[in-house]
Parts: sequence; structure tokens; C-alpha cells
Amino acid sequence: MTDTLIDRRDLAFQLYEVLDTENLTTRERFSEHSRDTFDAVIETADKMAREKFATHNSAADKDEPKFVNGQVEMLPQVKEAVEAYAQAGFIAGRYDYELGGMQLPESVMAACNGFFTAANPGTAGYPFLTTAAANLIRVFGNEQQKTTFLPNMLCGRFSGTMALTEPHAGSSLADIRTSASPADNGHYLIKGAKIYISGGEQSITDNIVHMVLARIKGAPAGVKGISLFIVPKFLVDQEGNPTERNGVSLAGLIHKLGYRGTTSTALSFGDDAPCQGYLVGEPHQGLKYMFQMMNEARVGVGFGAAVIGYRGYMHSLEYAKDRLQGRKASEKNPESSQVPIIDHADVRRMLLAQKAYSEGGLALCLYGARLMDDQHTHPDEQKREEAGKLLDLLTPVIKAWPSDYGPKANDLAIQVYGGAGYTREYPVEQCWRDNRLNPIHEGTNGIQALDLLGRKIWQDQSHGLQLLMQEMQVDLEAATTDRCQQWALSLSETLQQAVKVTQSLGKSLVGGEVDKTLANASCYLHLFGHIIVAWMWLRQANTAAHALGSANSDNERNFYQGKLQAAQYFFHWELPTVAQDLVLLRNQDDTCLNMKSEWF
Amino acid sequence: MTDTLIDRRDLAFQLYEVLDTENLTTRERFSEHSRDTFDAVIETADKMAREKFATHNSAADKDEPKFVNGQVEMLPQVKEAVEAYAQAGFIAGRYDYELGGMQLPESVMAACNGFFTAANPGTAGYPFLTTAAANLIRVFGNEQQKTTFLPNMLCGRFSGTMALTEPHAGSSLADIRTSASPADNGHYLIKGAKIYISGGEQSITDNIVHMVLARIKGAPAGVKGISLFIVPKFLVDQEGNPTERNGVSLAGLIHKLGYRGTTSTALSFGDDAPCQGYLVGEPHQGLKYMFQMMNEARVGVGFGAAVIGYRGYMHSLEYAKDRLQGRKASEKNPESSQVPIIDHADVRRMLLAQKAYSEGGLALCLYGARLMDDQHTHPDEQKREEAGKLLDLLTPVIKAWPSDYGPKANDLAIQVYGGAGYTREYPVEQCWRDNRLNPIHEGTNGIQALDLLGRKIWQDQSHGLQLLMQEMQVDLEAATTDRCQQWALSLSETLQQAVKVTQSLGKSLVGGEVDKTLANASCYLHLFGHIIVAWMWLRQANTAAHALGSANSDNERNFYQGKLQAAQYFFHWELPTVAQDLVLLRNQDDTCLNMKSEWF
Repeated sequence: MTDTLIDRRDLAFQLYEVLDTENLTTRERFSEHSRDTFDAVIETADKMAREKFATHNSAADKDEPKFVNGQVEMLPQVKEAVEAYAQAGFIAGRYDYELGGMQLPESVMAACNGFFTAANPGTAGYPFLTTAAANLIRVFGNEQQKTTFLPNMLCGRFSGTMALTEPHAGSSLADIRTSASPADNGHYLIKGAKIYISGGEQSITDNIVHMVLARIKGAPAGVKGISLFIVPKFLVDQEGNPTERNGVSLAGLIHKLGYRGTTSTALSFGDDAPCQGYLVGEPHQGLKYMFQMMNEARVGVGFGAAVIGYRGYMHSLEYAKDRLQGRKASEKNPESSQVPIIDHADVRRMLLAQKAYSEGGLALCLYGARLMDDQHTHPDEQKREEAGKLLDLLTPVIKAWPSDYGPKANDLAIQVYGGAGYTREYPVEQCWRDNRLNPIHEGTNGIQALDLLGRKIWQDQSHGLQLLMQEMQVDLEAATTDRCQQWALSLSETLQQAVKVTQSLGKSLVGGEVDKTLANASCYLHLFGHIIVAWMWLRQANTAAHALGSANSDNERNFYQGKLQAAQYFFHWELPTVAQDLVLLRNQDDTCLNMKSEWF
Repeated sequence: MTDTLIDRRDLAFQLYEVLDTENLTTRERFSEHSRDTFDAVIETADKMAREKFATHNSAADKDEPKFVNGQVEMLPQVKEAVEAYAQAGFIAGRYDYELGGMQLPESVMAACNGFFTAANPGTAGYPFLTTAAANLIRVFGNEQQKTTFLPNMLCGRFSGTMALTEPHAGSSLADIRTSASPADNGHYLIKGAKIYISGGEQSITDNIVHMVLARIKGAPAGVKGISLFIVPKFLVDQEGNPTERNGVSLAGLIHKLGYRGTTSTALSFGDDAPCQGYLVGEPHQGLKYMFQMMNEARVGVGFGAAVIGYRGYMHSLEYAKDRLQGRKASEKNPESSQVPIIDHADVRRMLLAQKAYSEGGLALCLYGARLMDDQHTHPDEQKREEAGKLLDLLTPVIKAWPSDYGPKANDLAIQVYGGAGYTREYPVEQCWRDNRLNPIHEGTNGIQALDLLGRKIWQDQSHGLQLLMQEMQVDLEAATTDRCQQWALSLSETLQQAVKVTQSLGKSLVGGEVDKTLANASCYLHLFGHIIVAWMWLRQANTAAHALGSANSDNERNFYQGKLQAAQYFFHWELPTVAQDLVLLRNQDDTCLNMKSEWF
């Protein structure tokens, strides 16, 4: 078992050599930062993740939270880890100095959080949810709500949840039924049931702040009648101290396949006792507010999937270097020594694929984080707007691609370990189980595909798509070595075909063939995702090819050669798989659309 | 949760309409059988699997065997189920009447065992291992060994294991070190350690008969110095009754990701007490004997993978028909009713893929079982030989294809369930975990790929391959409807390209480029596997297209339409994915071969 969560050399390459994150320090918001301060925070995250989170990752999986006498029993190390995270200032890492924050760029915070998820996704879930809930209050809450809840959340005394899903509606938020009735003092009384609420109950913090979607009585049907409420587990006094219990209660814990450290709960509101909720912002705007936070949440899911993929890759790489077994096919002498399994070409294939998926996924997510930084802090207003549009367009890909390919990487990690990988004595099976959540939550990947092909591509007269192609053009032209130019050519040809098919799908949509056009949206998402990740690999390859000439040690040369070989893997083994998507999309293949329920 | 393990209508279609299993009753060995007797046995298996096996599948997963005070504690239902299986005569199902058997064809026995694995792979493991061990003794053991052990194994009083793997050698059987020293009475004393021995300890039977590979002192190095021994847990007297404990002991239980009901053990031989072993057959022939049983074992793994895939498909299909959620993309009224999720094209895609994988895998494995029947019972000697060669060639595919695609089906089943699929409250996550073993055991799929491209393809001057192409030709020519003819054309074109690439790989092998030629063996296995399964779908489609015209009920017409649509799915969505394999193989892509350990 390796200690490495994310290869620091790779992270430095991606942040500083590919993305020029240091350049952010020229912006006013980050002017007190330097590469040194960024690296110090990253070092703190890496160390804390290894020492406080990784240490109980397996234990928290094996000994998952239990519902005993109305309380949730959990390993004490979870509370310690979450408190350490909050005390180090990570929950408020992005915030203004005056709010007690560190004014860190999203790029650096995302990298830091990567270590925690790689180390222990179950425990990391709690502070991440708190961060998300606090962001909602910070942006949309009124002054009183901010004063009452934010300080307690930022220091880790209160945690947060996102309470959207209901049992009968699942992904269909338009159908939620939880109701809110106006009561005295401008409060609302909340009544209903929620399910799959992560962190909905725990024994870590003094209070839990649920961000709840509900309908005010008489609200319009569908997504336009949903409001957002703060529903604390304990009511609080003026100073924000917890007082009496609010009427939200744990109906049961859900037992998951993985991510077991994070409780998943069924919650009931207003069942046994009145449940107070405080409206956030305007009535009926709840889903709009949620969706403004959704990009972050979805990028977060993609990031998590990429780094769990990465973690399995690190484990299986170490194992493959250590484990002796068999000989090359050409070696006929049975008395020759067994070789490390990394010497078998098929094992190298499985490691290269993992490298291509996890480093490619990491590059994609860090690019997404950089877009967030540009959207919020780029000195040029037009660039800020453009970054926002690019991020909007890419969000379904950043959510779905790593959550499709991170689990594939973990599957290969198990296979590299062979029989050992199938046992709970080795760490990779947990990575695989944990990662399986990511294609499901924050909008299944099927929903991401509909979001991309049904909405994002066409938004603003496809301005996002045009911007994207301009950005790609820069890197296509920056390819200078033979290898990079060859890859740039493949990418550019694939891109042209994708554009053509996009135009034909657009015509079909305009012609009113909505169901038929969207029937194969998942192929479109795969096509689009592979093109984007191929671009990420071209960017890395361009940088590596350039740096290779002036690299001054074997280690450095090996690092860059590895990047180039993984890029080659992606261009030879992965990008061509989209040929099939192109055919199905071009033909608007109707096999699935026309399958009848009664034929199954 | 559905009760259906394998759709009986589908099984009847595959056995009787596609494979003409009834025709076997014209052979002398099966002359006392009829379709009625076959169906009666299948009915018994289905019922027993549902009533005795499925009922504790989840319980045995959650409450796995424990090592307490030197004993293995297990749920009592496991013993009851295993005993019921033996008492119904299934262990001896294939055997001669005079050995207490039912003289059932392999095709029917395979189908029967499919129900047990679909119901509960963990519990089914025990009698399956006993069957395999008994077969070795029956074929290679001497009279005394047969008399002493077989009757006790066939009635389920003793169980069996296959003890091959050792900790330091894994898949590399050439490197096993367990030693056998000649002792008095012609016995051997066995000393060494084995790992991942399924059923190596349990609390079900009175005795365990380990079939152990070991080296007689002074034997040649490598695979040619390995002998096979019977090592009982308890020594037995002349009548075969257990007496004193033999020196084989449980070093520990291994905790697996899935298949938890079957104990996986580390065993030590001759550590604390002398351990007697009885040589089976000739010295140094052990691996040869094992490999003569290997086809059966590998077909068994493929079968298991296919039916676990099938089981998940049945569950998710029922869920998709029941679960209401969301609306069609074209439906804009939020007050319209939610629809069953099977109405969403993307859900139908996930169900169709599962249907294509699991019914395609089942067809492949039943075809393999039929080849075994033909190999052993075809009246024409040449046909017997040919069936043997075909089976030899196809074994790596029958093992690997369903074990790659069965887990993919289970992954899709989870996705159809969404959040519910990720919980242990629903059954599909267990299918997914259980099935993950299959690409690993009985030779990893990487090893299957080397076996196919490094050995099987070229065996007997590629006679097997020629026979295969003749067999496929029959079905290519039998395609009569437009749809079937189109699919036949795709298949035939792909086949031609595969033959060309095979020839070029052959030249490269003959030219001594062993490592380079075999570097991308896994692509070859995928190419070859997809061609074979496309053929299986063409056979089914030909049959369905023909039967559709004379079908006399809506149910029947729906069934055949479903077969045709699943065939279309395979030909439109799956077969074309081999284009990428063809390119990589044609170019002898060296990305993986040339990746260096230090570049990772």
C-alpha cells in the first residue's frame, strides 16, 4: 500500500506548468499569495489527508455509522479529522479575509480537497457538504441568516446538508412535494420526507444546517414553484447557539455499497413535532439558487471521481512494481527468475489506461476549477463572462467523464492486483466501491447527457461551443513535435466530425424531433467528453514535449516521457473509440428509442 | 425484487429452438431422456434455486463465514441448500446410471447450474467445486481412489476443492513449490502453502477432498514437474469413512469483495502434523490432468458470469417497469403524470445492453456446453473430434467474454436503479460485487488473451479456426430477412478483417516477434469475442425471424421482436467497437510494450 494520494510532481506540473496557476497572484484578490503560499497550503492538505484521513479510511468503511437509540454511532477519528480540516481553515479557504477566509483560488482549494477525497471520501464528505451549504447561505441568505449560521459553519461547529431528493421523485426535482406553510415570525413550517441526504445525521457537530427544497402552499407546479429553506436540527438563539430540537428527524440510515463513512439518511420533517424553516432569498427561486451552486457541486463530483481513480492507480502501480510473477512470453526457461508484473505488456496497458484516465480526469477538473477562478477574478470582464460560459458548457462533462472513467481505472487496479485485488485485505476494492456512487449522484450521467445535448450546447446561440473551439485551436496550433502534431491532427479531425454531427442534431431539434434527437444523448456525452480529455492530453503533451529538452535530471526526463506515452495511449487507444458514437449519432440510430417495454 | 432467475421462455428458446437440444435424445447415452425429462430437471433446478438458494443469498453475503476457535461458522441454510442439491442428484447429474448418475447432457446440466449461480453464487460454489474434484478422480484416479472417495462426494457427504495457487506464484503455476516426498505405503507427504482455495474449510460436509498440485522431490522445474494429489482433510478407512485428522490446516480466511458465501482460504500442508497425499495418475502429469478439466472449469466461470449478469438484468428490468419518475423530454407540462423509467430512451439503452450481454453470454455458454456434449457423445467420430477442437479454441472466449460483459451488465443494472442501486437494500450491488471475481479466477482474462492468441489460434495448423469459420458460414447463409442479412453482412465483413489481421499476427509470431505480437493480446480477445457473440446473436435472430411469422400470440410475437431488437443493438452498438481493436492489432501498436517502468 502506497502512501501517495496524488503524485505531487504531477500536481505541480498540472497547476504550474500547464495551467500557470502562479499567474493568478497578479490578480488583486490573490495578491498576497505566491506559489510558496499555494504550495504551503497544498502541503498542509496532503499531510493532513495522509495523517488524519487516510488512517481511518478502511476502518470507517468496515465499521460504518450505526443508528443506535436514536443516535448515530461513528468512529471517533471521523470527528477529529473533520475538526482538523475546519481548524486549518479549509471550509472558509475560498472566503474573503474579513470573513475569516484565506482568499485562496478555486484551483488551489480544489487541489487541496483532492487529497482529502483520495485519502478518505467518506469522511471528507462532511466538511465538503458544509462548504456547499455555507456557500448557499453566503450568496443567497439575508444578513441575519449569515450572522447566525455562517461563523458556526466555517469553524466546523455546525455542518450542512443539501436536502433535495424525495422518495417518490428521485432525480425529478419538478415533482418534489415537501411543503412549507407560513407561520408566525415570518418562519415556515416544513412537512415532508427526503431521502439519500448525505450527512443528514451524525455525531460530529453540535448542529446540522439542512438546506431544504420545498413548495410554499399554492406555489406553481413544477420547477418554478420550489423554494429554498434553512432547516436547522437544533433551533438557535440570537448568538447562533443551539437551543431546542427542531422537528426534523432521522427516519433511517441507508446502507450503501461504498462511501460508507458518509451517512446517507432518510429524513422526515414536521412528522412528530413542528419543523421550522427559514426562507432563503425569494419564494419560488429555490431551484434557481441551487443550480447556481450546481456547477461547483458537479465539478466537485468529477474531481472526487478522478482522484479516487488516481488513488487506485497509485496503489496498483506500486503493487505492479513489487509483485514478482511469471516471465515474458518469449522466456522459455522455467528456472529463470520471475519478473515484476509491470514487465508484462498487458499489465502496463492496465496501468497506462489508469494513468490516462486519472491524470486526464485531474487535468479536466483542474481546468474547470481554473474557469471558476477566471469567472470570478479575471481582470477582464469579457474574459470573466467567457469563462462562465465555458464552465457552463463543460460542467456535464467534468461531472460525467471522470465519474465514468475513474471507476474504470479502479476496475483495472483490481485486475492488476489479481486475486489480491478482490480481497478486502487490499485497498483497491474500496476505491472501486466508493467511486461507483459518482455516476449516480448530483444528476446521473444520463441526466448530464441530456443537459449537454438538450441545453448546454445551444445556450446563447452556442457561444460556449464557439469559445471552446477557439480555446482548443490555441493548443492545436501549439503542437510542435512530430508526435504532438500527429495527435493534434487526430483531435482536429475528430472535432470537425463532431461539429458536423452537432449541426445535424441541432437541425433535428429545431425540427421538433426532441425525443429522437436526445435518444442517444449518452453517445454525444461520450464523444464530447473524449474530445475534451484528448485536448487535456494534448495540452499536457505540448508542455511535456517542450520541457523535455531542458529537463536536467533522469527523474524529470522520465516524468515527461511518461506524460508523452500516456498522451499516446489516449490518442491511439481511447480517442478512436468515438468513431462508433459518431456513426450512431449521424444515423440517429433508433434501436433504443423504438424498443418496446413489452419486448423485454 | 423479481423472483425470476433466468427467463424460462428464453432458456427454452436457446436450448430447443436455437440449439435443438432435444435432438440429443436420439443418441444412445441420452436415449432414455426426452424434452419432458430435461424440462423436469430444469424445473426442479429453478424451483430449488429459488426456494433453497435465493432465499439466503443476501443473508450469506451480509453475514459471511467466520473463523472462530479453529472452526468456520456459517449460516445453517448453506448446509441445507448444498444437501438438497446433492440429494436431488445434481452432483452426479452427468454421470452414468451405474454410478448413480442421471446421464444428463452437459447442455441441460449447465442450464440447471445456471439457476443455482443466478440465485446464490456463494452457496452454489461448494457443490460445483465438489463436482470438479470428483471429475478429476473419476477420470484420472485409480480404482481404490474412486471407491474410497467418489460415492461420498456424489452424495454430498464430502466436498472437494482445487488447490493450485500459491502465495508467491499466483497465476504462474510453473513456479509452485509445494513438495511431495514419497513415504510408506506408496503415500506422499505434502508440505507447502496454498492460497485463495475456495471452500478450503467450511462447516457443511464431513470431509473435504483437496486436489493438490505439488512437486515430487527431484521433479523437473516448471510445468513439467507438477503432480496431482488427493489430500483429504480427514484420513479415511477402507469403507471411506473419515477417521483421524490429516495435516492440512486452515491458515486463515480471506475476506472478499463478493462471493462472500464461499469461503476463500489460505491452507497449510504438513506444517504442524504430517500431511498425507495420494498421487493421482502418473507423476509429473498433474498440470496436464488439470488442464483437461480446465475447459469445463472455464466454461463454468463464463456461465456464472453470464447468469449473474442475467440476474441483475431481471431485477433492473422489473424496477424500470415499476418505478415512476420524470417525463419524456418533449413533455413540457409539469402537471402531467410521471412515467415508468423504462419509457426513457436512455434507460431502454441500459436494459437493451444488459439483454444483449446476458442473453448473448448465455447463448455462448450453452453453445460451449453443447460442444462438450458433441465432443463426448456425437455418433460421428470426426464430429466428436471437431467439437473438441472448437471447444478448445473457444474456451478462452467463453471464459472471458461473459466475465467482461456480465459485470458491465451489472454496472448498468445499478445505474438503472439510480440511488437505490447503490444501496445494500436493493439486490443489484451484490450481483456487481459477486461478478467482479469472474475476470480474475480460473486464469485472469489477460491470461485467456495470451492463451487465445499465443496458442489456441495456431493449434493443429489452425484447424479449430477453420472449423469455426465453417460453422459461422452456415448461419451467415441462413439469414433470410432483410435485417438478418444486413447483420450477416456486417459480421462477415468483420470476420474477413479479423482473418487478415490474424494472418499478419501469425507471420509476426513465426518471425520470432513473440513479445511484440502478444503485447496487444487483450485487443485480439475482445475482437474475437465480439465476433463470436455477434454470431450467437445472428443465430438467435435467424431463429426468431423465422419463428415470428408463425407465432400465435402477442406474448410470442413480443418475445421474438425483443430478440430481434437485442440483435440489432448488438450489431449497431457493439460489433462496430472492434474497429479500434483491428487498427491497434494491424499496426501492432507498441504504446504499452514500450512504456517503461520508470516513466510511470
